[in-house]
Amino acid sequence: MVDVNTLPRTSLYEQLADEIARQVRMGIFRPGDRLPSVRQISSQRELSITTVLQAYHLLEDRGIIEARPQSGYYVRCQTHRSTPDPEISTPSPDPAQVTVHDLAMMVLRDASNPQLVQFGAAIPDPDLLPTKRLNQILANLARRDDLPQNYFGLPEGHEDLRIQVAQRAVSAGCTLSPDEIVITSGAMEAISLSLRAVCKPGDLVAIESPTYFGVLQTLEVQGLQVLEIPTHHQTGMSLEALRFALDNHPIRAVMAVTNFNNPLGSCMPDEHKQELAALLAGREIPLIEDDINGDLYFNGARPSVVKAYDDQGLVLLCSSFSKDLSPSYRVGWVAPGRFKNQVLRLKMATNIGTAMLPQLAIARFLSSGHYDHHLRKIRRAYAQKVTAMSQAVLEAFPEGTRVTSPLGGFVLWVQMPEQVDSLVLYKMALKAGITLVPGYIFSPNDRYRNFIRLNAAYWSPKNERALLRLGGLVARLAETA
Amino acid sequence: MVDVNTLPRTSLYEQLADEIARQVRMGIFRPGDRLPSVRQISSQRELSITTVLQAYHLLEDRGIIEARPQSGYYVRCQTHRSTPDPEISTPSPDPAQVTVHDLAMMVLRDASNPQLVQFGAAIPDPDLLPTKRLNQILANLARRDDLPQNYFGLPEGHEDLRIQVAQRAVSAGCTLSPDEIVITSGAMEAISLSLRAVCKPGDLVAIESPTYFGVLQTLEVQGLQVLEIPTHHQTGMSLEALRFALDNHPIRAVMAVTNFNNPLGSCMPDEHKQELAALLAGREIPLIEDDINGDLYFNGARPSVVKAYDDQGLVLLCSSFSKDLSPSYRVGWVAPGRFKNQVLRLKMATNIGTAMLPQLAIARFLSSGHYDHHLRKIRRAYAQKVTAMSQAVLEAFPEGTRVTSPLGGFVLWVQMPEQVDSLVLYKMALKAGITLVPGYIFSPNDRYRNFIRLNAAYWSPKNERALLRLGGLVARLAETA
Repeated sequence: MVDVNTLPRTSLYEQLADEIARQVRMGIFRPGDRLPSVRQISSQRELSITTVLQAYHLLEDRGIIEARPQSGYYVRCQTHRSTPDPEISTPSPDPAQVTVHDLAMMVLRDASNPQLVQFGAAIPDPDLLPTKRLNQILANLARRDDLPQNYFGLPEGHEDLRIQVAQRAVSAGCTLSPDEIVITSGAMEAISLSLRAVCKPGDLVAIESPTYFGVLQTLEVQGLQVLEIPTHHQTGMSLEALRFALDNHPIRAVMAVTNFNNPLGSCMPDEHKQELAALLAGREIPLIEDDINGDLYFNGARPSVVKAYDDQGLVLLCSSFSKDLSPSYRVGWVAPGRFKNQVLRLKMATNIGTAMLPQLAIARFLSSGHYDHHLRKIRRAYAQKVTAMSQAVLEAFPEGTRVTSPLGGFVLWVQMPEQVDSLVLYKMALKAGITLVPGYIFSPNDRYRNFIRLNAAYWSPKNERALLRLGGLVARLAETA
Repeated sequence: MVDVNTLPRTSLYEQLADEIARQVRMGIFRPGDRLPSVRQISSQRELSITTVLQAYHLLEDRGIIEARPQSGYYVRCQTHRSTPDPEISTPSPDPAQVTVHDLAMMVLRDASNPQLVQFGAAIPDPDLLPTKRLNQILANLARRDDLPQNYFGLPEGHEDLRIQVAQRAVSAGCTLSPDEIVITSGAMEAISLSLRAVCKPGDLVAIESPTYFGVLQTLEVQGLQVLEIPTHHQTGMSLEALRFALDNHPIRAVMAVTNFNNPLGSCMPDEHKQELAALLAGREIPLIEDDINGDLYFNGARPSVVKAYDDQGLVLLCSSFSKDLSPSYRVGWVAPGRFKNQVLRLKMATNIGTAMLPQLAIARFLSSGHYDHHLRKIRRAYAQKVTAMSQAVLEAFPEGTRVTSPLGGFVLWVQMPEQVDSLVLYKMALKAGITLVPGYIFSPNDRYRNFIRLNAAYWSPKNERALLRLGGLVARLAETA
């Protein structure tokens, strides 16, 4: 016989049990996680202790949670569950529908898949990062008691790091005061803030062609129009073409990677840099100059930057420590010239400032004197990897393939036979356990259908076989098409 | 007699010396800093070793640098220089010219001035932050070898933290899957990305009045128009007024701090939250809900959020760990509902992702079980401070002063006699070693001329005298005007 007085309470605890079971299914609480205490739930939900206990007992009966003496209730680890190997992701990119954003997201996701041979995202080889020393510095800083933990940090970033950046800029020909520098969360933020500082939605920006897809994403979300300027694989953006474009289009800003461009690897000669500075000065047009690879030169001296020839404050020089020290610290900087106030205002309205400890750790690493030694080491390594992989591509890929031999950075740009669709190749390569970046993503106008960018940072004899496999796939596509 | 052959070389080394001297004056190299080695300069500048040495000797003669045996050249520490006490900043705010941005920047700068009594920026009391334990966790993480240092991290942030955020959201009435959450660099970034996701420049956004100035800055740089909705100091945004506004203006989004609003301290009752969710659902209008103070309630249970009543995915719920764990870690989050893809796209195009180690340290702290204990401790402390300071304001300030008694958070909103100009008061208070936030900054329309916001986090018997001094200044202004 049913006691009607107990009905509401019964349904309450069942409701609670069902809700918790749902949270476990959704992954909010995972196997091994401790659930909130009976007392917590009781006070949060304004339910009696008895009701909560009843719900927990029901979940125990259902095998979803278990009680551990003196400790509380935990989500049960399902020991019977088979543990299949992680699947290699198999997205189905359809050239007609995939956007730069979707592709960029896939490239990033591939980069965190340890199952894949990493010829894709331009991430540095972890063996060539000073992660241990840098983290050691961070750990030591974190243990100190006298750090200013009580404030957000200023939008321009910590002075110690700005001083180090100013010192380093001297080798690129720039005399920057620490006050002219704003620390950012990586170079992407430096570029994004710079574009927002000098353009408004609808404005036209002249860019290199091909262009790094991260820049294309930023241009897209800011509602900017782009004009692609022909770019030489050795000398960079064509100044003749740019001059013509400036004469004939309402260009609001120019965006360029002047040293070891991504993906071309081009390095603009000093005379061109000087000429570009003069060209823009005459028309009061700002240049967003991305120098993220400037320290990764293989021969001779550190190349200069256009900013070194800029006496009008028109160049916003952007860089970061993601290629040489740590991608995951997310520390970069911009020297915005006459646009400093706008950049600072945008930085403040975007995220107030950059996380403090990563800034301080990098400042400490730079001032420790290890940085130059570290840079020499990775320059040598990348020079070897880039040369070897460039050669290997020529050998492994079918006739008609062209590949760059850059003098800095660590990416290769590969032009394959006309018939090869880089998205189809990307998909096939993924199935073979290799990631790469399809050419489509380097232009808003599908210009680079039969191109791919390869990351040479992971080049090693071990990965030679993967490249041979890739060459085989390209050959197959070149024949069947 | 002059040997003409030596002239160019002489002038080269003098030029170099002058340039380095200038860099020292600019602060690029500071007293005690090591200068680049002679060999480095020589290869960078393509100058002979002799020339560089001559320049360094000249700088030694001028007393600017010194050689240290076996070590190199260093900028000399000028021991004779007197070391005056740091000056308290004395900006001269002119109501007619100062913008929200300029004032916000001053408030931030004051916050890092240890000379001032911190009644200004809403920064938590450092004694109430678990800095030592959190940094300890960070240090331990940084010493581990198995961390994924080789990739940027994904735009949505680390899964461990997203799971913790989802678990915590349960107490606010929200069932969120970890997949629905995006980690950001603080709540400001969460709000900024949310606004960009749902609005385009020129759109109209309904906001509370008064509104936190950080939000006003973001609205301004995004080129958004605002409509101020009357807001009650206890129950929050007036829903009657909002309904009227929605009927009569092309409002594209609503922005509100529903729990312990900054600066009012208001907390919207559950029925209002439910009604607001329904109101917006009927018109398909998104709400950006800032819940940064939700865990800082003084009595009863954790207040819910509008998101808990949102079955349309229209609420973008934003929060961070800057008020309870660490402002300088810059870790926040957003649950963007149906706008997740847009937010993710913007996050990627803004800075790719959030720094990894601070995310992991906070995830570890949350899962350690210390978080609830910590929150109980700071809630008790803030309840005492807020109550005591509110009382002290009434006693110290002249008749006619009104002050809030919020039930959560740690700021007070003070209405002073009509004649008192809060910017004049700000300036006088700074000279007396006290910072506060003038009311002007909480509205785009100069509505709160005779209001100030006070941070109660730093309230202590020690600071009681500062408040008495402040009350004296207010009284003087009330009389003389």
